[in-house]
Amino acid sequence: MSDLEIRPAAPHDLPAIVAMLADDPLGARRESPDDLTPYTAALTRLTADPNQHLVVAVRDDRVVGTLQLTVIPGLSRRGSTRSIIEGVRIHADERGNGLGTRLIEWAVDESRRQGCQLVQLTSDATRTDAHRFYERLGFEASHVGFKLSI
Amino acid sequence: MSDLEIRPAAPHDLPAIVAMLADDPLGARRESPDDLTPYTAALTRLTADPNQHLVVAVRDDRVVGTLQLTVIPGLSRRGSTRSIIEGVRIHADERGNGLGTRLIEWAVDESRRQGCQLVQLTSDATRTDAHRFYERLGFEASHVGFKLSI
Repeated sequence: MSDLEIRPAAPHDLPAIVAMLADDPLGARRESPDDLTPYTAALTRLTADPNQHLVVAVRDDRVVGTLQLTVIPGLSRRGSTRSIIEGVRIHADERGNGLGTRLIEWAVDESRRQGCQLVQLTSDATRTDAHRFYERLGFEASHVGFKLSI
Repeated sequence: MSDLEIRPAAPHDLPAIVAMLADDPLGARRESPDDLTPYTAALTRLTADPNQHLVVAVRDDRVVGTLQLTVIPGLSRRGSTRSIIEGVRIHADERGNGLGTRLIEWAVDESRRQGCQLVQLTSDATRTDAHRFYERLGFEASHVGFKLSI
């Protein structure tokens, strides 16, 4: 298997990223891969924010994975900085070959590099395979994640 | 009961905020109210970041509550911006009088004002009273929250 590169996402990656966001039981209902306008605006905001790290995993010039890492300073836990991982997606052709592990390990290493003491994420309660995956990587399912659409 | 003000936290609020962070079954083990140095550094970082909103609730010139709201742009859900609520604390003297509801309602209103489509938070699995509180405010316990200390 050829080498993998993990690098910041660029505008020309958007079609591949949005296709991955949509190729998912939950994402299929929530995304609009035929209209990239809202994604282009969001990428501009992400790129302008130094605490946002949207990356893609690329193999053979093909985008095969993505995640978003956000660095959040805070007061609690003696002024700890934490990071939050969102929007983890692996291309259907690349599932089960360790790419997810590589991406999460990248996020943990980058969080350490940014001075974070804690990495956190939430996963939909229906994604039981993902929960086992995160527990294998050392994450603890210690919290309940609440959401409110507004 | 006199009027409540919710405003951005300032350096002179730190002793009261840290005392609230520490006055909590989980916070008691994690905070150092006798040494404000790490909190002062964290507040400087928070204040410099336009996507961070650390606020205090003040009644009769006394800090009686706090929370941190973070605005996070993103690609998923058609380029939705979400907000995350962290570090919600209510002074022991003010629990059960609706102040928590006022603070969360402030956070939801501010999230709407900032163009967010989703508000999210995680709550330690042991805080069952807090879970009922968030569900009463319309939040859905749809996710599992994972954390990794690094």
